[in-house]
Amino acid sequence: MTNRRVVLASRPEGEPSADNFRLETSETAPVGEGEVLLRTLFLSIDPYMRGRMSDGPSYAAPVNIGEVMVGSTVCEVVESRTAGLEPGDIVSAFSGWQEYAVVAGRGLRRLDPARGPVSLALGVLGMPGLTAYTGLLNIGDPKPGETVVVSAASGAVGAVVGQIAKIKGCRVVGVAGGPEKCRYVVEDLGFDACVDHRSPTLYDDLKAVCPAGVDVYFENVGGKVLECVLPRMNDFGRMPVCGLISQYNLTELAPGGDRTAVLMRAVLTKRLRIQGFIVLDYASQMADFLRDVSGWLAEGRIRYKEDIVDGLENAPEALCGVLKGRNFGKMLVRF
Amino acid sequence: MTNRRVVLASRPEGEPSADNFRLETSETAPVGEGEVLLRTLFLSIDPYMRGRMSDGPSYAAPVNIGEVMVGSTVCEVVESRTAGLEPGDIVSAFSGWQEYAVVAGRGLRRLDPARGPVSLALGVLGMPGLTAYTGLLNIGDPKPGETVVVSAASGAVGAVVGQIAKIKGCRVVGVAGGPEKCRYVVEDLGFDACVDHRSPTLYDDLKAVCPAGVDVYFENVGGKVLECVLPRMNDFGRMPVCGLISQYNLTELAPGGDRTAVLMRAVLTKRLRIQGFIVLDYASQMADFLRDVSGWLAEGRIRYKEDIVDGLENAPEALCGVLKGRNFGKMLVRF
Repeated sequence: MTNRRVVLASRPEGEPSADNFRLETSETAPVGEGEVLLRTLFLSIDPYMRGRMSDGPSYAAPVNIGEVMVGSTVCEVVESRTAGLEPGDIVSAFSGWQEYAVVAGRGLRRLDPARGPVSLALGVLGMPGLTAYTGLLNIGDPKPGETVVVSAASGAVGAVVGQIAKIKGCRVVGVAGGPEKCRYVVEDLGFDACVDHRSPTLYDDLKAVCPAGVDVYFENVGGKVLECVLPRMNDFGRMPVCGLISQYNLTELAPGGDRTAVLMRAVLTKRLRIQGFIVLDYASQMADFLRDVSGWLAEGRIRYKEDIVDGLENAPEALCGVLKGRNFGKMLVRF
Repeated sequence: MTNRRVVLASRPEGEPSADNFRLETSETAPVGEGEVLLRTLFLSIDPYMRGRMSDGPSYAAPVNIGEVMVGSTVCEVVESRTAGLEPGDIVSAFSGWQEYAVVAGRGLRRLDPARGPVSLALGVLGMPGLTAYTGLLNIGDPKPGETVVVSAASGAVGAVVGQIAKIKGCRVVGVAGGPEKCRYVVEDLGFDACVDHRSPTLYDDLKAVCPAGVDVYFENVGGKVLECVLPRMNDFGRMPVCGLISQYNLTELAPGGDRTAVLMRAVLTKRLRIQGFIVLDYASQMADFLRDVSGWLAEGRIRYKEDIVDGLENAPEALCGVLKGRNFGKMLVRF
């Protein structure tokens, strides 16, 4: 089978571009015992992929130059040498930026198209949803009546964080880029307020919509948003650190003095808890997550938005766009 | 009764000096029902007092200009109108920088001079000891075999943190100022190693004595030490933030670019937990603390050092010295 795939051509210095990727063709490997041949239907595009393009120390190994870019997918089984998987089955996999892949059949999760769009396994019912659910509930620990601020609020993770916080009885404030996203976050997702991180008065805007301070700040972006939220944090506030998308393309320290002391002083005097996590740390909570979020979806208490482009060849631009906040909703490539 | 006391004369800009204080005399108030008249025997000098001299937002109200400086004391009861307290009793109190004080008798803790030096109620068996015990055990959560790094390791808090971590089966590394303190930390307190924060090769020195990385960093100082420990932190490392003594006198941001992004990136990729606390948050653990630490003291498993100056008039210089790391052991003023 002829396979089209996108490999990492070079490591970006700062902002990545389409030139860092190369589209190439190859032949698929034969399907060995215990393996399956998959045809990709959807590829998820996520901010963490920027980290895999660099070879600095991180929680996961980088993609090597010339290797297929990694990524979560929804695929159809074309050929199976794995018991329990048949051609035509739809599965969620981690088969990367390519049209076909031969992978181990064990551990693939079968999806039921009758229960809803299979692409949700890459968004609200997949890694971003699990990230939101586990980070908010385990680290954020939101209590009824508390104020929760979520950055990148219209994104795949942020949208779910805020809606779960609403279900838990919190006042929820989003931070998003531009009036259209802010409107969506309030009107469609049901947040109590949303402020625009591009606003020159972000600090005051946040203060105005958080009259009782901030108890939980779900951190997806870092940089200026963190700087503006920090003075609003209440004593014993929690800050799950899920992502720092505004920082991923930095090549040098931001100018203007070291603000680390400001952060640490706030941690000390307000007894804040700042804690990083990645979704793999909470894989054991998958069943709880699927039960709860599927239920909330069915009840209409959680809504979602997908931003879909067609064709593998558009995946590089899709990722570059996500890193600039150009997507509106969960970014997917449809094959 | 004529009372000598030290009041806050002015707020320091940056480093405080003796000029920020004023020694004055006053008459003690009459002892009302439920009150006692105390004569101070020992006054504790602690870094947190720098915070009370400023009127920025913090977890406790500042001392007002003209008011007596706050502080923990060990006192003798001179006159009592409180049931259960008799003249001659020795108590721990929070009666501040003065020779005499009339305070409410309720809540004063009676000390038994037969059970050891009463000054320990200001150090290893007092607020600094409770700070060490609760911060290390509740937030640091040290496990046998893990590596614990403690800054200000020869200080009242750090010395207890490291010795408890040893009791818990950890490899313990101190950071202290100068060869004499480092030698004391290893030879007298039993830490596995101690590095000098004044060393121009601090980063490499730390790396050399933490071959398996750092699981718990008990933060007392901030600044350069934090910067050097951060790259050594292991995945899922914990950082109880107890103090930031290197930062208390700062009047502007440190130059050279904002390193907040470096800190946050480490939090994210290593899933660190950075959490501030103050000892009052854990007042309910006082009984456990006294039982455990008294026992370890009696068994010789915890040692301590006091740095004593005589006379209330020397309290201002003692505090200024503590903020520069000039003390060696728990700083006390003896009356």
